[in-house]
Amino acid sequence: LRRGVPEVIFCQGKTPKQVVRITERMMQKGTNIMGTRASLEIFEEVEKAIPEAVYYPEARIFAVIKEPVPKNKGLIAVVSAGTSDIPVAEEAAVTAELFGNNVERLYDVGVAGIHRLFMNMEVIKRAQVIIVVAGMEGALASVVAGLVDKPVIAVPTSVGYGANFSGLSALLTMLNSCAGGLTVVNIDNGFGAGFAAHQINKLGGQVE
Amino acid sequence: LRRGVPEVIFCQGKTPKQVVRITERMMQKGTNIMGTRASLEIFEEVEKAIPEAVYYPEARIFAVIKEPVPKNKGLIAVVSAGTSDIPVAEEAAVTAELFGNNVERLYDVGVAGIHRLFMNMEVIKRAQVIIVVAGMEGALASVVAGLVDKPVIAVPTSVGYGANFSGLSALLTMLNSCAGGLTVVNIDNGFGAGFAAHQINKLGGQVE
Amino acid sequence: LRRGVPEVIFCQGKTPKQVVRITERMMQKGTNIMGTRASLEIFEEVEKAIPEAVYYPEARIFAVIKEPVPKNKGLIAVVSAGTSDIPVAEEAAVTAELFGNNVERLYDVGVAGIHRLFMNMEVIKRAQVIIVVAGMEGALASVVAGLVDKPVIAVPTSVGYGANFSGLSALLTMLNSCAGGLTVVNIDNGFGAGFAAHQINKLGGQVE
Amino acid sequence: LRRGVPEVIFCQGKTPKQVVRITERMMQKGTNIMGTRASLEIFEEVEKAIPEAVYYPEARIFAVIKEPVPKNKGLIAVVSAGTSDIPVAEEAAVTAELFGNNVERLYDVGVAGIHRLFMNMEVIKRAQVIIVVAGMEGALASVVAGLVDKPVIAVPTSVGYGANFSGLSALLTMLNSCAGGLTVVNIDNGFGAGFAAHQINKLGGQVE
Amino acid sequence: LRRGVPEVIFCQGKTPKQVVRITERMMQKGTNIMGTRASLEIFEEVEKAIPEAVYYPEARIFAVIKEPVPKNKGLIAVVSAGTSDIPVAEEAAVTAELFGNNVERLYDVGVAGIHRLFMNMEVIKRAQVIIVVAGMEGALASVVAGLVDKPVIAVPTSVGYGANFSGLSALLTMLNSCAGGLTVVNIDNGFGAGFAAHQINKLGGQVE
Amino acid sequence: LRRGVPEVIFCQGKTPKQVVRITERMMQKGTNIMGTRASLEIFEEVEKAIPEAVYYPEARIFAVIKEPVPKNKGLIAVVSAGTSDIPVAEEAAVTAELFGNNVERLYDVGVAGIHRLFMNMEVIKRAQVIIVVAGMEGALASVVAGLVDKPVIAVPTSVGYGANFSGLSALLTMLNSCAGGLTVVNIDNGFGAGFAAHQINKLGGQVE
Amino acid sequence: LRRGVPEVIFCQGKTPKQVVRITERMMQKGTNIMGTRASLEIFEEVEKAIPEAVYYPEARIFAVIKEPVPKNKGLIAVVSAGTSDIPVAEEAAVTAELFGNNVERLYDVGVAGIHRLFMNMEVIKRAQVIIVVAGMEGALASVVAGLVDKPVIAVPTSVGYGANFSGLSALLTMLNSCAGGLTVVNIDNGFGAGFAAHQINKLGGQVE
Amino acid sequence: LRRGVPEVIFCQGKTPKQVVRITERMMQKGTNIMGTRASLEIFEEVEKAIPEAVYYPEARIFAVIKEPVPKNKGLIAVVSAGTSDIPVAEEAAVTAELFGNNVERLYDVGVAGIHRLFMNMEVIKRAQVIIVVAGMEGALASVVAGLVDKPVIAVPTSVGYGANFSGLSALLTMLNSCAGGLTVVNIDNGFGAGFAAHQINKLGGQVE
Ligand SMILES: Nc1ncnc2c1ncn2[C@@H]1O[C@H](COP(=O)(O)O)[C@@H](O)[C@H]1O
Ligand SMILES: Nc1ncnc2c1ncn2[C@@H]1O[C@H](COP(=O)(O)O)[C@@H](O)[C@H]1O
Ligand SMILES: Nc1ncnc2c1ncn2[C@@H]1O[C@H](COP(=O)(O)O)[C@@H](O)[C@H]1O
Ligand SMILES: Nc1ncnc2c1ncn2[C@@H]1O[C@H](COP(=O)(O)O)[C@@H](O)[C@H]1O
Ligand SMILES: [Mg+2]
Ligand SMILES: [Mg+2]
Ligand SMILES: [Mg+2]
Ligand SMILES: [Mg+2]
Ligand SMILES: [Mg+2]
Ligand SMILES: [Mg+2]
Ligand SMILES: [Mg+2]
Ligand SMILES: [Mg+2]
Repeated sequence: LRRGVPEVIFCQGKTPKQVVRITERMMQKGTNIMGTRASLEIFEEVEKAIPEAVYYPEARIFAVIKEPVPKNKGLIAVVSAGTSDIPVAEEAAVTAELFGNNVERLYDVGVAGIHRLFMNMEVIKRAQVIIVVAGMEGALASVVAGLVDKPVIAVPTSVGYGANFSGLSALLTMLNSCAGGLTVVNIDNGFGAGFAAHQINKLGGQVE
Repeated sequence: LRRGVPEVIFCQGKTPKQVVRITERMMQKGTNIMGTRASLEIFEEVEKAIPEAVYYPEARIFAVIKEPVPKNKGLIAVVSAGTSDIPVAEEAAVTAELFGNNVERLYDVGVAGIHRLFMNMEVIKRAQVIIVVAGMEGALASVVAGLVDKPVIAVPTSVGYGANFSGLSALLTMLNSCAGGLTVVNIDNGFGAGFAAHQINKLGGQVE
Repeated sequence: LRRGVPEVIFCQGKTPKQVVRITERMMQKGTNIMGTRASLEIFEEVEKAIPEAVYYPEARIFAVIKEPVPKNKGLIAVVSAGTSDIPVAEEAAVTAELFGNNVERLYDVGVAGIHRLFMNMEVIKRAQVIIVVAGMEGALASVVAGLVDKPVIAVPTSVGYGANFSGLSALLTMLNSCAGGLTVVNIDNGFGAGFAAHQINKLGGQVE
Repeated sequence: LRRGVPEVIFCQGKTPKQVVRITERMMQKGTNIMGTRASLEIFEEVEKAIPEAVYYPEARIFAVIKEPVPKNKGLIAVVSAGTSDIPVAEEAAVTAELFGNNVERLYDVGVAGIHRLFMNMEVIKRAQVIIVVAGMEGALASVVAGLVDKPVIAVPTSVGYGANFSGLSALLTMLNSCAGGLTVVNIDNGFGAGFAAHQINKLGGQVE
Repeated sequence: LRRGVPEVIFCQGKTPKQVVRITERMMQKGTNIMGTRASLEIFEEVEKAIPEAVYYPEARIFAVIKEPVPKNKGLIAVVSAGTSDIPVAEEAAVTAELFGNNVERLYDVGVAGIHRLFMNMEVIKRAQVIIVVAGMEGALASVVAGLVDKPVIAVPTSVGYGANFSGLSALLTMLNSCAGGLTVVNIDNGFGAGFAAHQINKLGGQVE
Repeated sequence: LRRGVPEVIFCQGKTPKQVVRITERMMQKGTNIMGTRASLEIFEEVEKAIPEAVYYPEARIFAVIKEPVPKNKGLIAVVSAGTSDIPVAEEAAVTAELFGNNVERLYDVGVAGIHRLFMNMEVIKRAQVIIVVAGMEGALASVVAGLVDKPVIAVPTSVGYGANFSGLSALLTMLNSCAGGLTVVNIDNGFGAGFAAHQINKLGGQVE
Repeated sequence: LRRGVPEVIFCQGKTPKQVVRITERMMQKGTNIMGTRASLEIFEEVEKAIPEAVYYPEARIFAVIKEPVPKNKGLIAVVSAGTSDIPVAEEAAVTAELFGNNVERLYDVGVAGIHRLFMNMEVIKRAQVIIVVAGMEGALASVVAGLVDKPVIAVPTSVGYGANFSGLSALLTMLNSCAGGLTVVNIDNGFGAGFAAHQINKLGGQVE
Repeated sequence: LRRGVPEVIFCQGKTPKQVVRITERMMQKGTNIMGTRASLEIFEEVEKAIPEAVYYPEARIFAVIKEPVPKNKGLIAVVSAGTSDIPVAEEAAVTAELFGNNVERLYDVGVAGIHRLFMNMEVIKRAQVIIVVAGMEGALASVVAGLVDKPVIAVPTSVGYGANFSGLSALLTMLNSCAGGLTVVNIDNGFGAGFAAHQINKLGGQVE
């Protein structure tokens, strides 16, 4: 059916053995495969069974890509606020890439030093879809969505402490944004944002 | 600049007089205008000053459209669960229409009687973007997103009682969905969903 | 009195020694015994003292069954959404079996791929009582309860992350369901669901 | 199909006119009908159109019963804690009666004066299914479920103030009960409890 | 003692008569007086007894100033995000003025249209202390605190709906800000912000 | 001053060395001393420095009693619901004893098997003050307070899982009790209950 | 039995007619009676039927006292923080008086002006039991309990706004107090505090 | 620009290697540097690369100060309630010192023994800005702010258990204080308080 589109395994809460077994079963169907929330330990077990598997350590994703993946025309920008948000941003970025999208990353542009964002607006302006990843107060998503006229997907992260309440703070900020065009996914759900951005970007057409 | 695209007034918490004043000021710029969360009382005051204003009572939206609005090619489907969710669904649908989108409505297809959803799948399949509006347990969004390969925007509503906690229940359901491609807006935020759907739909191209 | 009906020990928070002591004391009364939330470590200590003890590792239950258990006529179906929900589903299923019920399991039929549920409806239709175990958004319980005319017991699990808030999300979903006949137990309380299902199923009569 | 079983309208959030319209539409199908959360104002409008409609003011239910309803053999007991819990208890009791069950009521037996409960145990002992309705601390459900070996459905009510948090207190109490056989419905959901009790009671057989 | 510094009456929850009585009692001590959260009804009763009383309707403050108030040298800027935040912003601004501060207002500069903030930075740069008033996502406080090197007091407002949870969203945003120099007061507490800003501003010296 | 009354050290969050230092400093003043939340590791370090120190392992309390403690006349009963609540119950009981009270313990009398409570009512009836310790649903406190005409101090424990939310469930139950004479302390605060019970019991007079 | 001790009616949520009916039924048993949370409207209806009924408007209590009430020896002090806390403080004070206690009131001594508390310490020192009523931050209870060696009952009130969350703030403050001898009742539960204080005070002996 | 003012690294969630790399990069710009939330392990790695680095173990701060830091004239007082609050208090104090402020510490003056606070008021009276650090009920901030006429910055800590909810209790207490001039930072945010106090203190002038 949807040839080239990867099947996805959510590895969190699964043992390395279980992940290998599921991956091997999927490979028999000939699809591309990616695993999210995959620890290095899980990847090492997968690699033993499937040597062509590739690992993206910051994104905690492994992938087995044997089929060509159809490419979307538009660009996806992944923008993030702080250093600690990068793993979630990478989960989003690598997911989008594995589903056939061009991705540009713009990291460490949090609102506490907003000039860094403004100096890099052209990356954002070039994109068809923007993913904004931010923890703590999560204000970056509102600022970005207020500056562009494109769909923005906000990913709250659980980065922070105290009244952050494990990401609740950033989540509520993003849901309450009065900037148009902003939609939100679960706390730390880089995969969900990357996949939704892909589905949106696909509407802009695919490379022949 | 973005000729034909309406300017939006959020009327909640404003007096009729304030809304009229803001609307008149905007009209001098020659833009189209829409007002959300507009009570009948507000509309009647607006209508006195601007007789060509139109009111959508279920959506609680008024509009003053004098410029032609550019049209998007793709279809937006608005799907809702229960009768009481209709005002929010209409807010989303009318917003999308006023921004130049074709909209089809599929109401009263909640998961407690899921066959009604299945009997109407072709509407959903034809759409480029789907908005799902649901209160109480909000499960409809997951079911729909699991059935289609298109962007789905979920709108939790505050419909329900008890452990619904004013929409928190449906909001959490939607954020935790494991169905791919689902993003979420604030409780009762039909406008936000309609506008985000428009921005996504625009990526699929506009009618010349 | 209720001959054959097992006495239950809740092992969580007890040391292996304490569990052995309680089990031995109960055995002197000649009743059947089961222990829930029993780690392998606890079971190994029990087995040393009582070699006929049996362990169900996925359900984390051990049992010492020496008396024949009265059998109920009706069938209990245990339906679960994701792979990570299986331990709770097994706690429910094994509990129901140890109390004398026939149980059929239908796992990995979450709403994100709802066709798998529909392809297996006959299991559900044959049952007198259905237990639905689901984490994350927990929408499966509503869908199942909407399809059948039998009592459905919903068990939210703590599986998920972010706005799941340790099972709160699935719990609220299930409490707010508008599908008739649904009742809910505590997060991860497989035992409670299995036992309540047994008490309901008993009303349908026992095998002579 | 399920001849005699009433169709249910949830009137909350609907105008009297809407309720009349839905009722009339249903009547054309020849089914029995009941409306929950129906204010007196709604009933008076329904009665004008359908003079045979009956109103249960404490339960806030109206009913139009023209078909004979099949009767279940077993008894349902509805037990409640305080005077203010009676409307929810009545919603449960009348629902169960309209679905063809014998119901006995045992009101004002809260745990603060637990002797009243003990003096009336024989009503509870005779029942096949027990519904316990309680607000404030909701402790009654645990006590009752600890005393009987039958399914108990607990309904937390929003009765109380302060740290009651609109019924959250009673809801959590009931979900955390360590008494076996207890399942829970939404805060104030007398209808849901009555209907689930009916489905359970039906398993014990119907009067020929 | 602190001659000229107004005594403050918190009028919310007091009857007009009580407020008049307290005001008259204070006047006998010869101090200046201000009342916060004073409805028009309260003011009208105060004015009858004390004709020189002045009312600030947007701020819901009345004042009786008979003594000269010592003046601080520095400027306080009050910045606010949306139109509905203005009453709280005015409560802060009028409080600061009544305590002897020069105040400049910069309203309607929310982050969804952040260019308006940047076009007015010189007001903010001139101030010794900045008060930022914002509801919904409350992101404005972070942005402002990131741009200046002065103390910033953030006031979350209860403006918003849905996942705003009566101001919780903006409160958490502000507490989690990673911009230096930001401190926070209670939701809607314009008075508290105005008074704290005054105490800070006083450190910069008073006009002889 | 209050000769014989122990000084109390809250050991949680302190190192063994810090506890020893504080204990030694206090001993120089010649007072009796007790340490709560003291791990075995802490006690062992204390014992090295002060060999006459005594340890109550279940209560996690150590004591150094050199002065005679004045004795209260009345009896304090400590009642608890489940096995896992015993550490908190012991903290309360040992605290009360160290402050000079006679204490009787009545453990494992949770409401799920309420007959055990009724069979032991005479202990409760003899007491001047009753401490009730319960986790999960915490219903025991209401039942006991409803049966006696004496002050009852309720201690919610963090025992439970799921919707227990670390003791919130039992806390809310106890605060909402409609049984007269019940007051509540913090979750797991056995010390606070024991000390408050002592202060109450002292009002009934001391042994000469 | 307990001659002279009033029976109590909780009037909130009851109609005037219901309250009259319950009061009249109780009067036939010859007991004293008090009604809490009684609006003026309720009292006026009660007074028509029972002319000797007395009303305490600030406490919202009515009473019908025909039997002599046994008197306790000790004094109860009722201390409150702000003007708006007085209704709850009065509910506690009048309850304690109707149960036969001498009560002294010390109002408006909140911690923001703590010298007023210190100037009135002798009232507190004379009391056997102290009730502290405070809203907003509720800090007064800790301060008082730290100053005395007697049982202190803390009553959080729902007075406040914003992050007060209807009394949650004061409730948590009081539960977390590290001052010894403090126990807590539900938000706004003046009656519960007054009654518990009475039960404690009774331990100190009764006037012959 | 702001010569001598340290750049700050938030070390939590960063590896020792990352911190060293960032520190070295900053040193090339010639600025002073401080790292917060730095474990001993992190400091040891930093010290290897930069031998002149200094560590403040209680504050968990390291610093590399090579440039002279401009000094503020005024004094900052850091007041804390309990022993376990000292790490947060030290984070505030050391931060303020590194930014060029004179700091006096006043520790262990919690409200449960309020005389210790009163015996040390002159430290507080001498300060231009006061930082109050308190966990559990957090009442100290209100008491201090009620006693002085200077800006007070309150830092809630996560010290406590049970209904403390990881600092929520102290946070709400402080936000709801009715004492004037109090502003609040995030739970455990000693750095934020120290930095804000510095910015306020700077307004009082710098040493030439
Ligand atoms: N990081 C993630 N967060 C949320 N959902 C995910 C994530 N990764 C994968 N998924 C979803 O989980 C599904 C696979 O779940 P499973 O069958 O448990 O491996 C995929 O189809 C995705 O829709
Ligand atoms: N997994 C479980 N979750 C909740 N309750 C349980 C569980 N297992 C056993 N129980 C209940 O706990 C009781 C035994 O508790 P205990 O006396 O502490 O061993 C049993 O009678 C059951 O009602
Ligand atoms: N009081 C109630 N609480 C919860 N659900 C209800 C209640 N009354 C009716 N329902 C459900 O709501 C459905 C009808 O909803 P509606 O189509 O909105 O009238 C019924 O089929 C019931 O399952
Ligand atoms: N809007 C406000 N929000 C919070 N606190 C206030 C407000 N207005 C006044 N206050 C404080 O409340 C005190 C007066 O309270 P009261 O004695 O009840 O009138 C004043 O001294 C202020 O510190
Ligand atoms: Mg935008
Ligand atoms: Mg999909
Ligand atoms: Mg059903
Ligand atoms: Mg039972
Ligand atoms: Mg700044
Ligand atoms: Mg009692
Ligand atoms: Mg004390
Ligand atoms: Mg002050």
